[in-house]
Amino acid sequence: MNLKKSQIVLILVAALVLGFAGAYAGVQLAQPDEPNTKSLADAGDENTKGSSNTETSDLPANLDKITQAYDLIKQNYLEDVEDKQLVEGAIEGMLATLEDPHTSYMDVETVDQFNNQIESSFEGIGAEVSMTNGMVTIVAPIKDSPAEKVGLRPNDQVVTVDGESLEGLNLNEAVAKIRGEKGSEVVLEIQRAGVTEPFKVTITRDEIPVETVYSSTETIDGKQTGILEVTNFSENTAKEFEEQLNALEKEGIEGLVIDVRGNPGGLLNVVEEMLALFVPEDMPYIQIEDGNGEKEEYHSQLGEKKGYPISVLINEGSASASEILAVAMKELGYDVVGETSYGKGTVQQAVPLGDGSSIKLTTYKWLSPKGEWINEKGVEPTVEAKQPDYYYTYPIEAEEPFVYDHTDEGIANMQVMLSGLGYDTGRTDGYFSKETEKAVEDFQADNELDATGEVDQETAGLIETQVIEKIRDNEDDQQMGTALDELYQ
Amino acid sequence: MNLKKSQIVLILVAALVLGFAGAYAGVQLAQPDEPNTKSLADAGDENTKGSSNTETSDLPANLDKITQAYDLIKQNYLEDVEDKQLVEGAIEGMLATLEDPHTSYMDVETVDQFNNQIESSFEGIGAEVSMTNGMVTIVAPIKDSPAEKVGLRPNDQVVTVDGESLEGLNLNEAVAKIRGEKGSEVVLEIQRAGVTEPFKVTITRDEIPVETVYSSTETIDGKQTGILEVTNFSENTAKEFEEQLNALEKEGIEGLVIDVRGNPGGLLNVVEEMLALFVPEDMPYIQIEDGNGEKEEYHSQLGEKKGYPISVLINEGSASASEILAVAMKELGYDVVGETSYGKGTVQQAVPLGDGSSIKLTTYKWLSPKGEWINEKGVEPTVEAKQPDYYYTYPIEAEEPFVYDHTDEGIANMQVMLSGLGYDTGRTDGYFSKETEKAVEDFQADNELDATGEVDQETAGLIETQVIEKIRDNEDDQQMGTALDELYQ
Repeated sequence: MNLKKSQIVLILVAALVLGFAGAYAGVQLAQPDEPNTKSLADAGDENTKGSSNTETSDLPANLDKITQAYDLIKQNYLEDVEDKQLVEGAIEGMLATLEDPHTSYMDVETVDQFNNQIESSFEGIGAEVSMTNGMVTIVAPIKDSPAEKVGLRPNDQVVTVDGESLEGLNLNEAVAKIRGEKGSEVVLEIQRAGVTEPFKVTITRDEIPVETVYSSTETIDGKQTGILEVTNFSENTAKEFEEQLNALEKEGIEGLVIDVRGNPGGLLNVVEEMLALFVPEDMPYIQIEDGNGEKEEYHSQLGEKKGYPISVLINEGSASASEILAVAMKELGYDVVGETSYGKGTVQQAVPLGDGSSIKLTTYKWLSPKGEWINEKGVEPTVEAKQPDYYYTYPIEAEEPFVYDHTDEGIANMQVMLSGLGYDTGRTDGYFSKETEKAVEDFQADNELDATGEVDQETAGLIETQVIEKIRDNEDDQQMGTALDELYQ
Repeated sequence: MNLKKSQIVLILVAALVLGFAGAYAGVQLAQPDEPNTKSLADAGDENTKGSSNTETSDLPANLDKITQAYDLIKQNYLEDVEDKQLVEGAIEGMLATLEDPHTSYMDVETVDQFNNQIESSFEGIGAEVSMTNGMVTIVAPIKDSPAEKVGLRPNDQVVTVDGESLEGLNLNEAVAKIRGEKGSEVVLEIQRAGVTEPFKVTITRDEIPVETVYSSTETIDGKQTGILEVTNFSENTAKEFEEQLNALEKEGIEGLVIDVRGNPGGLLNVVEEMLALFVPEDMPYIQIEDGNGEKEEYHSQLGEKKGYPISVLINEGSASASEILAVAMKELGYDVVGETSYGKGTVQQAVPLGDGSSIKLTTYKWLSPKGEWINEKGVEPTVEAKQPDYYYTYPIEAEEPFVYDHTDEGIANMQVMLSGLGYDTGRTDGYFSKETEKAVEDFQADNELDATGEVDQETAGLIETQVIEKIRDNEDDQQMGTALDELYQ
């Protein structure tokens, strides 16, 4: 059952990203000045269009004030200022007043990254990275990628790229340095837990296919059961999903689990195509509401529901298009298993400004088939299911080693991790007891470390690595277990 | 010697200032498109002038991009947005790109506040604040203000105002919340360095008279000595200063201390008028440098130096115009006593945008007579002098009473306070020893509290009050003592 790798890492690590940072959660519609009907279907190619708002509307007189401020700064500020800096500052300043976390200005580089996300491949080394404790950290190499081939591992910290330090860069800036054209080489300096000195690896970048649908089967109570994990809603996702669903049905599955845990969303039209495979025409699969409160329902052409039971797996990392899927299936009568989802009920459009930059702007709300707006609430599961405690731990921060008789919330976190690995720490409340010390000693002895009973950085790093590996091995995926069991209740 | 109340509290409290937001620390020149010669003299009334930049310069084509973004938001954002909001957002966004803490947009209300500062009174709590690392931070409470009486100190961070978070607000918006009519109450939640939990203080707003010059005399070695404390450089300060200096000279003073501790600055022309009383014509009292690196010297018409010795008192709360004064006097050969000053070497101008709002923009650097730029360095004293340790303590936060055998940084702070009040705690390193317990018991007995030897909230409150009173009584103003002694060395 190797399909669940990526989403599990999500839960452990909290905020991972596929190669970059966050724009990915957006759902797109079409051009804002077109009516929102057909446009739902061709959202995907809008990025490539030219500038949209060329007609100049009646500007209020006080736009002069912006010009006046601009002139003042250019002419009188103590230092010289670039036009581009002021123009981008003005746009970001206007967008900031909207106080909408999903609206943003995207410069040319960010638009490129955004498009990479929507497309079915990108060029790079093929590793998910996150910013952890200020360090760019490998979350996981993608299967068969250059990053995997060269042996990068979860929790490896990237210290330099081609000799340049990443200190002070944000995740996007760091990723921009790691990425590059297929065939080019990049040298990463890696700090690995348990290895004293940083070491360098040379990686040849390649085209990284973004697979977003993973299919497998399980036999439950003698019934062949399909599992479709969807990690993202990008260009090819609906097509891949339909193909793999057809293949499973050909195999004769008697039930299906759709797993969108940790799936941050993607393209609106893609999830719509997928819902059209399940939601019959007599019920809308979604409603779209504009700024005036006008709602429009969207229907499939499907005759009837699938003949087999389905459940949808969600967690707090399921956002946007994942929630569109989950809430529609829930209102259609299927079980939704797991934990309450993220709660993003708005639709963004990326509108090009004509010079390669774009504004990603919130333009619509989406509502469930029955008209519910889940924004900031999320989709509640019909069957709640959590993972074992160690899935919710976080990397150990031990400036000072954790030692006997100390109390710290970081110690509690470490106790949960060790317990998850099968070492009985006696308690998991943050008090470093004698039993905890014994558990640490046992762990150290089993891993050829000095059995000091203290959790220093080396021991901490090894505990983390083993927890991540255990989560990837999927032995304890209780949520999936519940979803499978619920199918035949 | 009651003149020193405010500054001492200031020192206790650490950094200083007036009624509102940092704007006060600004030094003004004249209209930016006039040459910077005569304009130095009439900086004070520029706020009342009309719009300055009516001629439109050649705008780059990419200003269209701002218009385009504006249109897009107005036409397509999910919610309706006011023009004013977007225009102000654009201006604030442009200014933010300058990354200059002294440059800001001032809306109509803020301009009013700014003018209040220059004028002789305003209504509020009486504390200068700044935006530091994204937090609204007290620079200094004004002498005898509600902010001072309630014990606010430099570097205190304001977390909430009347329960509302200040997160995301700019300085002006935050100040607007703190200010209000005389007699009204406001609750500030304060985060103080060295204190774990934020705490709340209730402050009754008042009319804050802006008296800025305090005069007194001391007899040192039989010599009549004048002391002029200057708390701010506002409209009337130069006139008041000259009158009081004349009065002291008539009394026959043989030496003078000018005390600008905790003085955040003010109007450039005002400090210039004051320096013209001391700096002879053969040496510039200041140099002003524009964005092109062109420097201009400014000279007085004074024949010669005063016939008596002078020293200037500074601390880390002495900023801007205070530093112009201190560094000029230092380079003229006088002693500067105290601690290194704040380090603000730029000049701002408040330029009206024609609708009542203004932009406060950094337009010049000021240099010392000899051409030194003290920005981010401050003026170093020729004679270093600190206050007694208890001046640097902070209110006791004792959720749990402090008791025998415990160790805590709050206990160290309390020990310094008690020692300052004359109770020997044996040590001041944070370990609550038997001697500390005895000191607490003695303090309690002397103040008709149960002599428990434990520092509960009641005992803590009384210790604090007595420390504040002692500081206000000025018995131990070692810096002033040093400044007076240095005069006749």
